[in-house]
Amino acid sequence: MALTYELIKECKQSGARLGKIHTKRGVIETPIFMPVGTQATVKTMTPEELIEIESQIILSNTYHLYLRPGHHLIDRAGGLHKFMNWNKPILTDSGGFQVFSLGDLRKISEEGVEFRSHLDGSKHFISPEKAIEIQTSLGSDIMMVFDECAPYPADETYVKNSLERTTRWAIRCKEAHKNFENQSLFGIIQGGMYPNLRKQSAEALIELDFPGYAVGGLSVGEPKPLMYEVLEHTTPLMPKNKPRYLMGVGSPDCLLEGVIRGIDMFDCVLPTRIARNGTAMTSQGKVVIKNAKHTEDFQGLDPECSCNTCKNYSKAYLRHLFKSNEVLGLRLLSYHNLYFLLQLMKNIREAIHEDRLLDYRDNFFEKYGYNA
Amino acid sequence: MALTYELIKECKQSGARLGKIHTKRGVIETPIFMPVGTQATVKTMTPEELIEIESQIILSNTYHLYLRPGHHLIDRAGGLHKFMNWNKPILTDSGGFQVFSLGDLRKISEEGVEFRSHLDGSKHFISPEKAIEIQTSLGSDIMMVFDECAPYPADETYVKNSLERTTRWAIRCKEAHKNFENQSLFGIIQGGMYPNLRKQSAEALIELDFPGYAVGGLSVGEPKPLMYEVLEHTTPLMPKNKPRYLMGVGSPDCLLEGVIRGIDMFDCVLPTRIARNGTAMTSQGKVVIKNAKHTEDFQGLDPECSCNTCKNYSKAYLRHLFKSNEVLGLRLLSYHNLYFLLQLMKNIREAIHEDRLLDYRDNFFEKYGYNA
Repeated sequence: MALTYELIKECKQSGARLGKIHTKRGVIETPIFMPVGTQATVKTMTPEELIEIESQIILSNTYHLYLRPGHHLIDRAGGLHKFMNWNKPILTDSGGFQVFSLGDLRKISEEGVEFRSHLDGSKHFISPEKAIEIQTSLGSDIMMVFDECAPYPADETYVKNSLERTTRWAIRCKEAHKNFENQSLFGIIQGGMYPNLRKQSAEALIELDFPGYAVGGLSVGEPKPLMYEVLEHTTPLMPKNKPRYLMGVGSPDCLLEGVIRGIDMFDCVLPTRIARNGTAMTSQGKVVIKNAKHTEDFQGLDPECSCNTCKNYSKAYLRHLFKSNEVLGLRLLSYHNLYFLLQLMKNIREAIHEDRLLDYRDNFFEKYGYNA
Repeated sequence: MALTYELIKECKQSGARLGKIHTKRGVIETPIFMPVGTQATVKTMTPEELIEIESQIILSNTYHLYLRPGHHLIDRAGGLHKFMNWNKPILTDSGGFQVFSLGDLRKISEEGVEFRSHLDGSKHFISPEKAIEIQTSLGSDIMMVFDECAPYPADETYVKNSLERTTRWAIRCKEAHKNFENQSLFGIIQGGMYPNLRKQSAEALIELDFPGYAVGGLSVGEPKPLMYEVLEHTTPLMPKNKPRYLMGVGSPDCLLEGVIRGIDMFDCVLPTRIARNGTAMTSQGKVVIKNAKHTEDFQGLDPECSCNTCKNYSKAYLRHLFKSNEVLGLRLLSYHNLYFLLQLMKNIREAIHEDRLLDYRDNFFEKYGYNA
């Protein structure tokens, strides 16, 4: 068994859980946020910095690494961990989400998905078996099944057909997966915004007995309250003794609301992407660093944050870096945003431990300027 | 006195000197290379990383900081050191070189230089007094006089007139400079490629008794042997008890040849600029990381280098980062190139100490693939 989930405690105020995921590359305290290293690098960051801000696990993208530099090259390099100099756990997605995002560039069949590379237009085919082959070469600690993430909105028949194929693909992934001593394969519950379909998907996948389950197909454009509603229907169906992962979610409010509904793991490019656009997440809400009002603001980004960026640099300096297109600006804001989210998750774990997560959320939102 | 030069020893094999520059912000062991932080940041690097690779002093550009974010803002921020979080010495140039580089955008008169900003076309005027005012606001440890760097080639009459004006400007800079308790003002010897004019410039400036002298107007397009020849004429004219700074020079061969001819300080954007283009300086010569031959090269950049980049990452990974336009690639190569040059200067100091600098140079060039 490459991975086990230990349930430490359940919050008395909410559906939140405190847990530990034990892997061969170390223990992950949950709930946790996973920084995203799409192309075998968390953009602008070194692995040393990821350790410094207490990242416990990162995510990397199968689709991107398959196309460039290629999974065979990474295999020959000794696997993704060695290639990118990261020794803690890695979760890889299956490539499904990226491939489906290609729109007109892809064609779905029962066998798999044919698509054209966004880099050079070359033709490729990923099947469930291929997705497992690639992830096996990458050597990630947690692999994901090849699924279809249905768009929003989508009618019930489409979503039902899609989730049933996703289930058949999950069976094929499980059969193709051989390296279970070192790599764990998670199932992905689909079903769009339809509670009955979520139930159908969850039941079918639970029967396959994966060591962990993700909720897919959310944060795809639906209103947030709808996402929370779907979560409320779905997480109670999921096994208590296995990790629950909400894919592609990373705004502070969604992390809090997700945890409250029983989610243990999250990933999203949001913190690093908005950082590169000059937006910082802070305890007082978002700071758009290029705004003229920061020109002579010699205070740090967030008075409550003790990250290196906040300790050492003023908003005026950060603004200057962004106005001057300096790489250091991208670095310092990416560092801060990831630190901010990982610190938020730490505070969330502490609040669960002390059965006060709803109070924590309310206080957080009051300062953050978000109306829960 | 804000600065003193201590001559430790002279090399028995060459004109090289081992020394220490004592400043209020610490001691600088010479000969030294100064990384360039044009816009109040050494591109892609944090100050912590600059310390890690043993940078002793950095250079920043008056012209750029005057235009953006403005020297008054930096003054209000508490000075350049505080603004950019760098506590070791800083040398600022006078803005002269950048202003003269503007070509058609500038007009020289006895009073100073009128120019248009490369950022927004706005009109500005820098005089010797203004250059000192700006550098005083920045709070650099070493300021430079406002000079004209004559182009190459230039006829003797032009260069003679230019250097004589530079001398008159040096007098005005010295008169405008009041904060000599904390900031030292260096003179700049001009005179183009004409030994008699170099002599004229050196003698006039030495009479003004600056605490240090730079050799300006070299590395402006002339052949390297000519630069070395001019240095051979010029450094013997310079005071032994003061630091000698060769401006804008940073290739390994020029550093070695400069030190051999008695230079103590160098600066150049070369190591960081070529790093961002994907070129590494190594003990075996230049490595162009995007070259196909590195695709599956799982060795580090330089087998003789022990920097973090070389210890932790393969050429295959670095190539992947550059092919994927990832910021981490720019960071890792900039880090390596600066480490490489600072390590070279350390080795040079050791070789001077042991009176074997010419042997060190010959060995270095043999491996580096450069025919001295």
